[in-house]
Amino acid sequence: MAARKILSTQVAILGAGPAGLMLSHLLARAGVESIVIEVRTHQDIAGTVRAGILEHGTVNLLVDSGVSDRVLLEGDRHDGIELRFHGESHRVDFKDLVGESVWLYPQTDVFLDLAARRAADGGDVRYGVTDTSVHDVEGSPKVWFTDSEGGEFEIRADFVVGADGSRSSCRPLVPEAQRTWYFHEYPFAWFGILAEAPRSSDELIYANSANGFALISQRTETVQRMYFQCDPREDVAGWDDDRIWAEFRGRVNGNGFELKEGPIISKMVLPFRSFVSTPMRHGNLFLVGDAAHTVPPTGAKGLNLAIHDVQVLFEGLDSHYNARSHHLLETYSDRALDRVWKAQQFSYWMTTLLHTPADANDFSRARQLGELNSVVSSRHGMAYLAEAYTGWPDPH
Amino acid sequence: MAARKILSTQVAILGAGPAGLMLSHLLARAGVESIVIEVRTHQDIAGTVRAGILEHGTVNLLVDSGVSDRVLLEGDRHDGIELRFHGESHRVDFKDLVGESVWLYPQTDVFLDLAARRAADGGDVRYGVTDTSVHDVEGSPKVWFTDSEGGEFEIRADFVVGADGSRSSCRPLVPEAQRTWYFHEYPFAWFGILAEAPRSSDELIYANSANGFALISQRTETVQRMYFQCDPREDVAGWDDDRIWAEFRGRVNGNGFELKEGPIISKMVLPFRSFVSTPMRHGNLFLVGDAAHTVPPTGAKGLNLAIHDVQVLFEGLDSHYNARSHHLLETYSDRALDRVWKAQQFSYWMTTLLHTPADANDFSRARQLGELNSVVSSRHGMAYLAEAYTGWPDPH
Repeated sequence: MAARKILSTQVAILGAGPAGLMLSHLLARAGVESIVIEVRTHQDIAGTVRAGILEHGTVNLLVDSGVSDRVLLEGDRHDGIELRFHGESHRVDFKDLVGESVWLYPQTDVFLDLAARRAADGGDVRYGVTDTSVHDVEGSPKVWFTDSEGGEFEIRADFVVGADGSRSSCRPLVPEAQRTWYFHEYPFAWFGILAEAPRSSDELIYANSANGFALISQRTETVQRMYFQCDPREDVAGWDDDRIWAEFRGRVNGNGFELKEGPIISKMVLPFRSFVSTPMRHGNLFLVGDAAHTVPPTGAKGLNLAIHDVQVLFEGLDSHYNARSHHLLETYSDRALDRVWKAQQFSYWMTTLLHTPADANDFSRARQLGELNSVVSSRHGMAYLAEAYTGWPDPH
Repeated sequence: MAARKILSTQVAILGAGPAGLMLSHLLARAGVESIVIEVRTHQDIAGTVRAGILEHGTVNLLVDSGVSDRVLLEGDRHDGIELRFHGESHRVDFKDLVGESVWLYPQTDVFLDLAARRAADGGDVRYGVTDTSVHDVEGSPKVWFTDSEGGEFEIRADFVVGADGSRSSCRPLVPEAQRTWYFHEYPFAWFGILAEAPRSSDELIYANSANGFALISQRTETVQRMYFQCDPREDVAGWDDDRIWAEFRGRVNGNGFELKEGPIISKMVLPFRSFVSTPMRHGNLFLVGDAAHTVPPTGAKGLNLAIHDVQVLFEGLDSHYNARSHHLLETYSDRALDRVWKAQQFSYWMTTLLHTPADANDFSRARQLGELNSVVSSRHGMAYLAEAYTGWPDPH
């Protein structure tokens, strides 16, 4: 067996999703070297269709750090959402309430923008690697991997960053005695479809009904993305187009609103859960994004939270290398977790506010409508929701 | 058996608590006659010590309708509360956030003010009655009762109002097939004490801790009222002063804050639940206050909600008699229930936000702290809470 080829860098990053690539991009701009390795191929990632609602802070970072301004040109700015319940729609006007907006821009495009930028800047990003393993994170970290051509490598780095998603191989490196894993399972999942149909609405509709939750979203002028709450064990095979549309109609149509229907070109069941792994640092290993936490999709926080982790970690690494000040890096976990728990809470709140639990009784159903009514009948309630949805101002 | 003596009036009111007396007072000012009957004696009610946080709207009604301005002279205006969690206090500044305040003024004093006003105005209020029964609420209502001197009476009235509290004898008169009863039981109760001690704080402290909820309230300069979350089956006999103070210390002391202790002169366990009975009208019978709904005490909404019901019902009766317009009276139930469900939601929210359930796990505990942090770190979140606590603006 040939000896591993040694690569030296300052920061080794596992995972070339938006979080890993954004960190690598920000570090490069600050003169800090990194190598990114990723088990999936570029094509695999680009082919994974994922929705995306970007907070204004995420959009600003993409544009201001020079990744791309494509989000502004091709993304759709949304100045609000509709909360629909008891058969009536109530607009939450983000712009009016908190002066901010969000952008509908697929996560896949965020990846493509970042990957293109890293490539153009000569960033070292290696896709399709296998046999990755991370060693000595409490001392001088090493990352072993085999590249797509079979070459065996060892990265020697000051720090390792686990940006390797919800099935992270880095997360278990925080010793069991020193970590806490926080779980919450929900008794529902989302049944998601792509349909060839015109837009039913310019903005997202979050619908609560006695039949359960539904989300009406958009993708293009001619293809729409929609979801309805289902049992986590639901099987898409039992659902033809007619049955699916009947389900949507029973949850969102009424009082003059009618969903525009069309051929369904994709359907899937998306289970979800709440999860946090703390601390987000162990020795010279840092966890970011889904590697440390996952949220239900209802609050549209997953990608934004990952990008926020990256910003906080970047501040720490930049300050460590360029200002020889170590405080920000040492406090990374606590600083990141402040927003992680706000996002967990918001995602939990949006989920429980809008979904109908199987064990709902008369009181819980009426209280839920009372809560929806409390929110939309109060400017403060709507602003509280709008501030969270568009992204909290950063206290740092 | 002697024949019942017939009394004729426009509105027969069961219950001389704050709701019943306030309605009778408002009706008298509008030239509408009423008779109030009450099973307890005046002395019984005056001797029942009950806390009271009055919304600004409740205070305004007491003062503006000429009941008394004693609340302004002897009550304590509170411009905020403290939310205490994770060992730190965060002030919710009502005045700054929503421009309003609440008043600490015992419910017993509200009763005394109203009873004195009704007596001074020659109102017909009969305490200590027995054998009450209500008949023919779908037609021409009659109320039978025996007065404190043994005389048997029949009130003939256009309308009957059930203001007879949580064990209402009027509530079951809404036929089972036409009503819905909404219940929610909580897995905790409050252990309440009165202690001879100076004030520990000028404002109420709502404390969340790993050991459970505590509420530090005030009564006078020398007597304080406090509560801590306990098991609903808790027995006060097992709790001496030392054990009680140790429990409070573990929930509120820390970071420079120390509760002022003293001899405990009263202790009791207060169970609570959420309950709503709809509709709040059946034929010529109307339900107000606790007769129709009860809330957990955490949001301090019980008395205020009862007074709001009375305002809404008074508008309906006033309009019915004085403007020959029946719409407001006919829509009483729906108009009252709008605020009832907001208050139910707020009371449920404050309860679940601050109490520690016995089955709390790592996630639920961390999420709860994330929610408390979300509220106090957002001006919108604090204003949403402040608006509800001080009393929503009335949409009518």
